[in-house]
Amino acid sequence: MTVLILTTEEDVTADMVVVHLNAGAVPVVRLDPADLTEGAALSGEYVHGAFRGHLSSGGRLVSLDGLRSVWVRRPGVPAARAARPSAWLTEESAQALYGMLRATGARWMNDPDAAHRARHKPWQLRLAQSCGLPVPATLITTFPQAAREFAERYPDLVVKPVSGAHPQDPPRAVPTSRVAPDADFSAVAYGPTLLQRRVAKRADIRLTAVGERLLAARMPVAADADPDEVDVRFARAASPWEPVEVPPRLAESVRAYLRGAQLAYGAFDFVEDADGTWWFLECNQSGQFGFVEVDTGQPIARTIAEWLSRPAVPRQARFRGADSAVC
Amino acid sequence: MTVLILTTEEDVTADMVVVHLNAGAVPVVRLDPADLTEGAALSGEYVHGAFRGHLSSGGRLVSLDGLRSVWVRRPGVPAARAARPSAWLTEESAQALYGMLRATGARWMNDPDAAHRARHKPWQLRLAQSCGLPVPATLITTFPQAAREFAERYPDLVVKPVSGAHPQDPPRAVPTSRVAPDADFSAVAYGPTLLQRRVAKRADIRLTAVGERLLAARMPVAADADPDEVDVRFARAASPWEPVEVPPRLAESVRAYLRGAQLAYGAFDFVEDADGTWWFLECNQSGQFGFVEVDTGQPIARTIAEWLSRPAVPRQARFRGADSAVC
Repeated sequence: MTVLILTTEEDVTADMVVVHLNAGAVPVVRLDPADLTEGAALSGEYVHGAFRGHLSSGGRLVSLDGLRSVWVRRPGVPAARAARPSAWLTEESAQALYGMLRATGARWMNDPDAAHRARHKPWQLRLAQSCGLPVPATLITTFPQAAREFAERYPDLVVKPVSGAHPQDPPRAVPTSRVAPDADFSAVAYGPTLLQRRVAKRADIRLTAVGERLLAARMPVAADADPDEVDVRFARAASPWEPVEVPPRLAESVRAYLRGAQLAYGAFDFVEDADGTWWFLECNQSGQFGFVEVDTGQPIARTIAEWLSRPAVPRQARFRGADSAVC
Repeated sequence: MTVLILTTEEDVTADMVVVHLNAGAVPVVRLDPADLTEGAALSGEYVHGAFRGHLSSGGRLVSLDGLRSVWVRRPGVPAARAARPSAWLTEESAQALYGMLRATGARWMNDPDAAHRARHKPWQLRLAQSCGLPVPATLITTFPQAAREFAERYPDLVVKPVSGAHPQDPPRAVPTSRVAPDADFSAVAYGPTLLQRRVAKRADIRLTAVGERLLAARMPVAADADPDEVDVRFARAASPWEPVEVPPRLAESVRAYLRGAQLAYGAFDFVEDADGTWWFLECNQSGQFGFVEVDTGQPIARTIAEWLSRPAVPRQARFRGADSAVC
């Protein structure tokens, strides 16, 4: 049974996991959907009520029935490197590849439909609340008056994009910024704006969840930190990330979040306040983990390799919700 | 409790359903996401573990907690009609609107993530097989040799796109065509190709599923029909669609398909062969139904209105799979 990794050739984070799969003698096939239909090929036959499918990549042929798991790491745009690329060829290739893979019994990290839903920040905040995670007071609005009233109740605010990143190629993150006390909110009418109570933080927390296993790291805020530097991605690191215990009640909420979101992997960002409370900011279903592993020595890559190595889903459980008596 | 319809202003099919909702005195709000942020606005507040959200469209304000259902008919591209449209504004608006709606207890016709998955033809064919629906022998491949061997086993073939439509604006359907007996399959290497055994049909079947209710219509093939005219969408109509009974075993399979696909609505295309067997071709989760209702008089619009009018999902069932003890 093979592990399929969908990612680009340059992806060194995938290499970290492949090392552990190789050490465990687990067969791995790496495929970049961008290589369809030059370096990669596919075929699936539906005959007499059964399906037989194959993928070929880098000269290796693998049966779709022989896949134990699919790791969606950093896949390229399907057929982007074809001799004559087009939007039409990309759509056809995406449908063929992901359509066939969706119907195998392979376990997903992460299921593409769950991953798509999990990117919606307004949905994340609601799910986090429902699972008992502390969420800083947040407003997403196109009503300037709603923004003004919110700013009166919560005078210390940050503003961030609803979607988290510019929809560009390559995607570029927009920093979270503090809202000036005399901000004019009339421009809110032109596009949805996310305002959130700024948490006076004493540390940033990155919690990496792999299946049931939770690995948390903590980076204290420097004593001389500028309170306007709210976005840890753009602030200079005061000290390395260090491993930290996950409070048991919070662990329960995080696992409930993952079940609710149907995710096998998630990178959670929290901020820790003066009382030690971890406030939920977001869960990135494809968040990087290499920098945490390098700083903390936590075995994230090995844990991912172990998760991917487990057996495939039993045949009858493949179509969620379908009547098992019939399907 | 309000029904929200996401569609363009010109959508006359939606009008057919609105008539029935009005007759039942069910409140309706119609919103085209393209009108964000000019004619439509939104706001959602996450405070003290709770969420309060509102939508405004056409001068009407509705609470997101007060939505009983959302009908995704023909929604425009979010913020497409904004004063200064951009890919960034579209992404932000899509995330804000669909992210908030996903977290309400409203019932979906259809859930956007289920709808996305359900568009994948290779997945449809596998699910149909698993549910016991007869599927004509099909090959999806980029291997010319696999295509040649398939054509030897099944000499009478049709070819169709994997994705069903050109990814253009407006989308254009590509007709299904017969494969010439001396076809050269070498071009298969340049893009995934779907080959399917041609079913010698005596009728086309359109089965419209609305929740548990199945409404089927049948159009016999004209006696003098050209066997090369395989695509009913492009052939001239020999006679009107007529209501037809759904065979009980097939009905069971169709309902299993809908459960497996997590769809509340589906337009199934079958062809009926000389033995009376209905062969599954596809299920379009957003297929038109107006032309069938006009021909057959079947109460499809009324059935949709009735489905949309039912109460919302209980709060604890909103996040599928989440631990109800915690979430």
